[in-house]
Amino acid sequence: MSTPPPVLVDIKFNPEGVTRVLKTAFADRGSINLADPADRLRDLSAAEYALLWKPDADLFQRAPNLKVIFSGGAGVDHIIGMDSLPEIPIVRFVDRSLTTRMSEWVVMQSLMHLRGQYAHDISQRRGEWAKLIAPEAAEVTVGVMGLGVLGQDAVTKLKVMGFNVIGWSRTRKEIDGVETFDARELDAFLARTDILVGLLPLTPDTTGFYDSGLFKKLRRDGALGRPVFINAGGGRSQVEADIVSAIRDGILGGASLDVFEVEPLASDNPLWALENVFITPHDAAVSEENALFRHVETQIARFERGEPLQFVVDRAAGY
Amino acid sequence: MSTPPPVLVDIKFNPEGVTRVLKTAFADRGSINLADPADRLRDLSAAEYALLWKPDADLFQRAPNLKVIFSGGAGVDHIIGMDSLPEIPIVRFVDRSLTTRMSEWVVMQSLMHLRGQYAHDISQRRGEWAKLIAPEAAEVTVGVMGLGVLGQDAVTKLKVMGFNVIGWSRTRKEIDGVETFDARELDAFLARTDILVGLLPLTPDTTGFYDSGLFKKLRRDGALGRPVFINAGGGRSQVEADIVSAIRDGILGGASLDVFEVEPLASDNPLWALENVFITPHDAAVSEENALFRHVETQIARFERGEPLQFVVDRAAGY
Ligand SMILES: NC(=O)c1ccc[n+]([C@@H]2O[C@H](COP(=O)([O-])OP(=O)(O)OC[C@H]3O[C@@H](n4cnc5c(N)ncnc54)[C@H](OP(=O)(O)O)[C@@H]3O)[C@@H](O)[C@H]2O)c1
Ligand SMILES: NC(=O)c1ccc[n+]([C@@H]2O[C@H](COP(=O)([O-])OP(=O)(O)OC[C@H]3O[C@@H](n4cnc5c(N)ncnc54)[C@H](OP(=O)(O)O)[C@@H]3O)[C@@H](O)[C@H]2O)c1
Repeated sequence: MSTPPPVLVDIKFNPEGVTRVLKTAFADRGSINLADPADRLRDLSAAEYALLWKPDADLFQRAPNLKVIFSGGAGVDHIIGMDSLPEIPIVRFVDRSLTTRMSEWVVMQSLMHLRGQYAHDISQRRGEWAKLIAPEAAEVTVGVMGLGVLGQDAVTKLKVMGFNVIGWSRTRKEIDGVETFDARELDAFLARTDILVGLLPLTPDTTGFYDSGLFKKLRRDGALGRPVFINAGGGRSQVEADIVSAIRDGILGGASLDVFEVEPLASDNPLWALENVFITPHDAAVSEENALFRHVETQIARFERGEPLQFVVDRAAGY
Repeated sequence: MSTPPPVLVDIKFNPEGVTRVLKTAFADRGSINLADPADRLRDLSAAEYALLWKPDADLFQRAPNLKVIFSGGAGVDHIIGMDSLPEIPIVRFVDRSLTTRMSEWVVMQSLMHLRGQYAHDISQRRGEWAKLIAPEAAEVTVGVMGLGVLGQDAVTKLKVMGFNVIGWSRTRKEIDGVETFDARELDAFLARTDILVGLLPLTPDTTGFYDSGLFKKLRRDGALGRPVFINAGGGRSQVEADIVSAIRDGILGGASLDVFEVEPLASDNPLWALENVFITPHDAAVSEENALFRHVETQIARFERGEPLQFVVDRAAGY
């Protein structure tokens, strides 16, 4: 039997890590790593599987015989809008470790807002002993938008920490002990929410979704005084100019952002310096290379045995 | 039937809150609030129950007919060393809300160290996009010292967040999914610990306990690089000069402290400005007055019905 063609890998993050881990991944067929100068100009016409993160515009012309596209992350917005996208399955990355890390980030950010970490930090820098009497988690409602793989894990952990948790998704979900809302019940959901956690995919429907109008619908008489906006879903789901003005005008009392309209966030962007805003550089839940390559291997094996692929994206819905 | 004598209240924290809530507490017998100038010189000789936090030295002379002493907090070290302490039961404060708040604090501080919040904060202030690849919680072992009411709740929640958790107490505890150690196995416990969480009461045995010698026994080759010390038990259990030198010498990679040898912490104390050290002003788990007074009412009612008091301190053990 002839060796199957190598897997095409074009992911832009952590090139050293990718190169190192690729040495032992895909042992049965090898790989072409477009981040490696030696591979950059190779003929891709035989490639059947491609693992991609923000691929170049001409990639699908260079690799016209692909059977499956794998996304290097949980989101597929970086692929799905591409002109030349072939009509083949797109599989996104779902991984226990990635999910766990996202929940670490969501719970930590929610607790930092609950417990006044920003105010404590200011007092600490001044050497000032200033006790804060924070509400307890049960007095605060966290509203999670997006109840997929990430949203459901975050919901469970926020509940264990004591928060009152409610959830919102396109189609209503049943989650024990959590009141849930569907797309049409957006305003009712927002009116109950003190801390909004965004874990929605970026799609045409969610582009520019978190804006002034939405922030104004959040609960204004909650235990935190003013509502808080947390986003680790898609950067272009948020209108950053509106976040800046909402913080400055006191419509929002704080925010935590891991994703941005344009990344990396420019060093002169006003978001960096806003009061009670915590910025992380899209590292809330990084894709770990070992886990990513193992996931692709598993899915290729399923596909070649004739079993259905898992985590296939619904192109019409966009996620 | 004659009215029973009022409850003696002498707690030094949040005087406005205490005065407000006392108006409706102890409806059957009223209270004497030593924080209230009108009450300060009243005759205390009839008092049978006293609710105390850091009482004045002459309190027990002024109130020689007490039957039960209630602590205004979970700890009793502020009472148990007093010379004139009568031989009557001391009841400490145990409360769901206080426990929940402490776990909020412990989980938040553990996550801030796991996720490099200090480094992110520095990057944010510089407007610098600097991704951090943190280990995931499962790669880090949190060792909780003290597996009482607070320690056990913290352990459960740290586990849910994904941390590997181990525990240490005087007598060995059985906790599902958590490896536990008893007093004699201290070194083995420390050698496994990346993040040490102190939830021990302050007693003669635990005074000056967290010192250079102990910090050096923590695991040095863990996923965080260097071990972290977190304390919300007793302030005088820690040797602050040793914390300062351990951070400066790289023996510790970080710390979170809610309690101090002397409180309030002086504004020129070097702890405030140490790298990767988070300071909170003994507000990790404040006693909420409503809950505190309800707890005292419940215990008085039990006592007067002839039922055993709950949460009675073991004087020999000191907690
Ligand atoms: N910052 C980071 O480091 C990082 C890391 C990983 C992922 N992410 C982001 O997180 C996103 C979510 O990941 P996931 O794995 O949880 O995705 P998922 O399992 O596909 O879940 C998506 C959820 O969003 C809901 N949804 C989608 N469009 C909607 C709309 N227009 N209105 C209302 N609800 C809508 C879906 O509703 P239904 O349940 O009705 O389908 C579903 O509950 C990813 O797309 C990615 O952008 C960020
Ligand atoms: N910072 C704050 O805001 C705040 C708020 C509330 C409480 N606290 C502090 O937290 C402490 C713990 O509260 P808790 O309610 O969890 O107390 P607890 O239920 O009495 O538990 C104390 C734990 O410490 C262990 N222990 C005591 N002395 C020990 C020793 N010499 N060696 C080893 N283990 C020892 C006990 O072991 P055994 O199980 O064998 O008895 C027990 O597991 C309080 O005493 C208080 O100082 C701080």
